[in-house]
Parts: sequence; C-alpha cells; structure tokens
Amino acid sequence: MSSVLDPSVFGRRLERAASLAAGAGLAGLLVTPGADLRYLVGSEAESFERLTCLVIPADGRPASLVVPHLELGAWRTGAVTTLGLPVLDWIDGADPYALVLDALGTPATAAVTDAMPALHLIPLNTRLAAPAVSATPLLSQLWMRKDESEIAQLREAGAAIDRVHAGMARWLRAGRTEREVGADIASAIVAEGHARADFVIVGSGPNGADPHHEVSDRVINNGDIVVVDIGGPLPSGYNSDCTRTYSIGAPDPAIAAQIAALEEAQASAVAAVRPGISAEAIDARARESLRRAGLEEFFTHRTGHGIGLSVHEAPYIVAGNTLAVEPGMAFSVEPGIYHAGEWGARIEDIVVVTADGCERLNNQPHGLTVLPAT
Amino acid sequence: MSSVLDPSVFGRRLERAASLAAGAGLAGLLVTPGADLRYLVGSEAESFERLTCLVIPADGRPASLVVPHLELGAWRTGAVTTLGLPVLDWIDGADPYALVLDALGTPATAAVTDAMPALHLIPLNTRLAAPAVSATPLLSQLWMRKDESEIAQLREAGAAIDRVHAGMARWLRAGRTEREVGADIASAIVAEGHARADFVIVGSGPNGADPHHEVSDRVINNGDIVVVDIGGPLPSGYNSDCTRTYSIGAPDPAIAAQIAALEEAQASAVAAVRPGISAEAIDARARESLRRAGLEEFFTHRTGHGIGLSVHEAPYIVAGNTLAVEPGMAFSVEPGIYHAGEWGARIEDIVVVTADGCERLNNQPHGLTVLPAT
Repeated sequence: MSSVLDPSVFGRRLERAASLAAGAGLAGLLVTPGADLRYLVGSEAESFERLTCLVIPADGRPASLVVPHLELGAWRTGAVTTLGLPVLDWIDGADPYALVLDALGTPATAAVTDAMPALHLIPLNTRLAAPAVSATPLLSQLWMRKDESEIAQLREAGAAIDRVHAGMARWLRAGRTEREVGADIASAIVAEGHARADFVIVGSGPNGADPHHEVSDRVINNGDIVVVDIGGPLPSGYNSDCTRTYSIGAPDPAIAAQIAALEEAQASAVAAVRPGISAEAIDARARESLRRAGLEEFFTHRTGHGIGLSVHEAPYIVAGNTLAVEPGMAFSVEPGIYHAGEWGARIEDIVVVTADGCERLNNQPHGLTVLPAT
Repeated sequence: MSSVLDPSVFGRRLERAASLAAGAGLAGLLVTPGADLRYLVGSEAESFERLTCLVIPADGRPASLVVPHLELGAWRTGAVTTLGLPVLDWIDGADPYALVLDALGTPATAAVTDAMPALHLIPLNTRLAAPAVSATPLLSQLWMRKDESEIAQLREAGAAIDRVHAGMARWLRAGRTEREVGADIASAIVAEGHARADFVIVGSGPNGADPHHEVSDRVINNGDIVVVDIGGPLPSGYNSDCTRTYSIGAPDPAIAAQIAALEEAQASAVAAVRPGISAEAIDARARESLRRAGLEEFFTHRTGHGIGLSVHEAPYIVAGNTLAVEPGMAFSVEPGIYHAGEWGARIEDIVVVTADGCERLNNQPHGLTVLPAT
C-alpha cells in the first residue's frame, strides 16, 4: 500500500475522476485492483475472487471502498484511511455487489476499470441500469499526462534499467544459455532498484526474430545478434522498459547496415515527438524511415505504448490512433526488424513529451552494441 | 506452454466444453488467458491489452485461437499446435473482436471465462447478440472433478509444501523479522519443487489475527503464536496451500487449549467430507465444533476453497453453497480463530474427495507446533 506520493494527491485525483464521471452522465466509477486503483488511492491490493472495489460516485459524495472483511488489515495504512474514505467490508457468504450498488446509488450507470474481471463485471452488469462502459476514456485523461513527481519516477526507472544495459558485457557471452543470461539480468534489475524484474527477453540468433520471445535454453554463439528487452516497476510502481540489440563479436556488415537503418528510424520517430503530433504520425515516421531502407515489411508491430503504473497503457503509438500527444505523456518508441528463422533487432526508449519536443529517459548507446567474442 | 498431461486430454476437454455450451444453448465459449485456458489447452500464456482468446464453438467445429501476431512463436510448441487447432493471428491496429465473432458464428451468444478483463468483455458484449454470461457454471463441471493425473499433481504439491513446514524450525526463530523468515520460506518453497512461491504469510503475535496479513518488519518474540500459510504452483500449474500454527517456546496453556479446540474443529470438518455432503455442511461442521468450545465468534471466514490450476476456485466451502461434493473434488479445510490485536491461529489441509471419504494431501502434525525459544 506504499506510495511515494503525498496522500493529498489521491484526494485531487478522486475529485477529478468524479467530475469526469459526472460530465459523462454516469452515476460513478467502479475500480477493482490494478493500475487504476493504484493511481487513484495508492493501493497495490491484489484480489480476485473476493471483490475489492473502489466506488467513486459522480454526485459529490465521497468515494468508498468495498473490501473483504479479512483484508481490512491491509487498508489501515494507506491513502484510503488517510483520506478518511468510508470502508464497507463484507464477510464470506454476503453479497458484495449489493454494497457496490448502495454506494453508487441506484438505478445506476457506471464505468469500470479495464482490469475488472468478468467474474465481477457480469454480476454487476445484471444490477446496473445499463451495461457498464469502460472507465479508460475518462481515467486516461488523468493518468496519461504524468505530473512532475511521476516523471521523476519514470526518469529514475529509466536510469535504473540503463545501468543494467550498461553492465550487459558481464552476463551476455557466447557459451551461456539465454536462460542463464536472463537470470543474471533479472538479479541486476532488482539490484539496480526495481521492486522486481517483470520481463526479461533475451532473443539470440533466430529467437530475436520473435518479438515476444522470453528466454530459452539456446546457447548463445559468437556472431549472434541478441535482442535484450527488459524492465520492471520501481517500489513506487512506475515502470522501466528498454531494449538494446547486441552483437557477440563483430557483426556481418550487411546486418550491421540494417541495424544502423533501424537506429535511424528510431531516432527519426523520437525526433518527431512534440506536442500536437498524433500517435499514428509518430508510428508512420518510424515506418517511413524503414521503408527508405527497404526494411518496412520486417517491422511487424506498433511503434510503442504508454507507460506509467502499467507497462502497457494508453497512448498506443499505432496506425489509426489520431490522439494528439501532450506534455507529460510517456511512451515507448521501439521499432524493430524481424527476419523469421534468422535474426531480429529492436531499439526502444521511453520518452516523455515536453513543451517543445520530448525527453528520452533511456540514454545508453542506441546502435548495435558489439560485445567481445569468446 | 508446458504441461505434464498428454495433449489428447486437451482434445477431450475441448469436446466436453463444446458439448456443455451446446447444452446451455450458447453459440460457444470464449476463454482468455488464465486457469481455464491452461486447463483447456495447457497454455500458460499471459496477455492483457492484446487479445488472446480461445473460441470454442458449440456446433462441433474445432476450437480456434485468436492471438496477436507477435505472440505466435510461443504457441508453436503447445497443445494448440499438437491438436491442429486453427490459429487466427492479428496485427496491431487490426480488430481482434471481429475475428472472435467470425470464429464463433454470428449472431452469437457466448459464455466467457471469469478471468476475461473488462477491457475485452465490454467490446465483445457490444457485438454479441446478448451480454456474455459466465462460463464457470459449465467449465467448473469439468475442472472441479480432478482426474488421477491431476490428483497426483496436487498430492505432489502437498508433499512439497509439507517438506517446507517440516523445516520451519530452521527459519522461524525469535529475533528475526517476519520478512526475513518469509524470504527463507519462499526460497524453500522453490527448492522443494514449486515453480515459484505464490504467497507466504508469516503472521506473528497480533499479526496472526489478520487472516490475510502477509509479512512485516515485526520482530518475532519468544512466546509468540505464529500463523504460517504458504503455497505456490508446481511447474505443471497445480497448487499447494497449507497452514500450520507455531509457538515460539512453550505456549500459554489457555491459548494452547483454544488451538487444541481448533485442531479438533478442523479434524471434525475433514472427517465429514464424503461424496454427497454439501459444501455448506462441511463449513457448518467446523463452526459447530468451535461453537462447543465457545470460539465460533472468532472464526470470521469461510472454511475453504477449491484448488487446482487456481489457488482459489470452486467449490467454495461456505454457508449458502448447497453443492454436493463428489469424488475428485479438491479443496482446503482451514478454520481459524482470530483475536484482534492479540493472536490468531489457523490449520489448513487440502483434501480430495474419495469414493467413501477423503484423502488429506497435507500430513505434517496439525496441532500447535512448539519451536525452541532462543
């Protein structure tokens, strides 16, 4: 339930969320555990089959928390208590959905957090006046634009994951398996200040051509191109996510030329980031650059995703997203090229939109990093 | 994507799931990542914002899998491939819900897995002929009754967690914090064969009175009563979950007497388990036993929960659940007593219903275990 933030920040967020709900003509917002709950009240609660749900009425009454009786203890130290929010606890066998509807006021229409499982959404829908809609179009107006304290956390996360990439030569060597290298990287992610390692991709040789490969028992060879995509949350919950591509010994010049073109494409997309440009235009910039190098067909995923208390969140930097980016928005710029069965490469930074451009939060060298052969 | 099970078992499960969906008058079942997906096709896939969804049509056509293009690699080695199920991949920017509806056949009614997040359920509901219902009343008819290979996995998980409890004297000592003890227990859980430690509760002294306390920086004292509730999944995905209560040095005789009554209540509930008894009758048996000892008011949660590929699943052993238990059902029996601000105790075994009673999967001594004072 810890947070680096002043509890008063949660009070302001709750007020703004209620105001957005009122503006949308809803009775309120329903938020089960996940990134939205952490954003709104600083809670890291995890629950599944027993309902925990923050109820934010749109009519100005205070938000309240429906929580299983036996989890009350965990709420005594958080913002819910500091802010004096009503806590409605329920015991096994009782009907928690009735408590939610009482807190919301009936007959009610509501928007729900993306993380709410069907387990809870289906019974809630049967009691609401109309099926719940997604709260993300409202709540993302709050969490998409990071404030200074949030940007400071993302900057710290970026510096922490940069230190891990800076140490890569210690772990990434020929003769070791991806899994062995990945275990060392995971330890380093924690040692550099993360709460945990959330993902560690070590894609060597042909495995690098699978963008979501994790690790395997493949032994890394001299001459391999290796994609290393790593990150995790700080204790505050704000995430890092950074990809660099390595060569074990001197690379084939034709491959090196393609990765230089990828570096140019990533830099071109980053250079395009400024207030007012659309998410899809940033995506298009990376694609255009790769097209000029004859490589566009090998770039098979979106250019990026927002990041904050979630590793993947709005804004998505993808064709079709006409959202104009604004100062405080943080997202990845991560074009890649993938030659199935052969090799792949990806270069990823987190950037934060500033008043007149953007700040890169990852600053290790971007091009193909050549590590010693053995 | 690994599984200890023969891939043919998944084919049979998919056929039975389709048959249950047909019997319920649905067009099919929609299953996103989680325990249901693992049960049906052996997949450990995790995904959130990019839709992965198994579509099981009720009309006899084969199940198919909608999956993000960039995650195709992870599916090449699993049952989906072995069984030859159609895989419908989609790239960023495309509409995955249209693929789901195409695979289901429209206009369609469907049941969805409990784990499906609102992120996906809300857009699917707008395209279905009627809001989706829960698949759990159907799928639980399959996974609630474990087969021999599943029971063997649960037995192995029980033996593994028993070995951790057997070693408790090495870690649980006065002068150490709950957090330090918990870290050692987590390592032991993995060392004894689990894929990971999913939960480690070390509730010493007053913290034991909070049933869902995890660990804290409280230093354990001589004379403390300590609740240790621990478990995690084997590599196969089947879970352990076992609680024992310890005393650091000789306990107060009045406390020891209460914990002896708790032991009797737990044994009484376990002794009641046989085919045909209702879940609520098992719960009542534990409560009656505690009532006779004047302790019923201190038992503030349900008696148990089913266990398998999820730590908590049906059947829930709780007042109001009239389900008659059947051979192969596996669940916890875990009464506790909680004296707020003072101390707590809980005793938990996993049991599997047999032809004429039940098998306990946890067999460390059940009563208050006295560890040396220091």
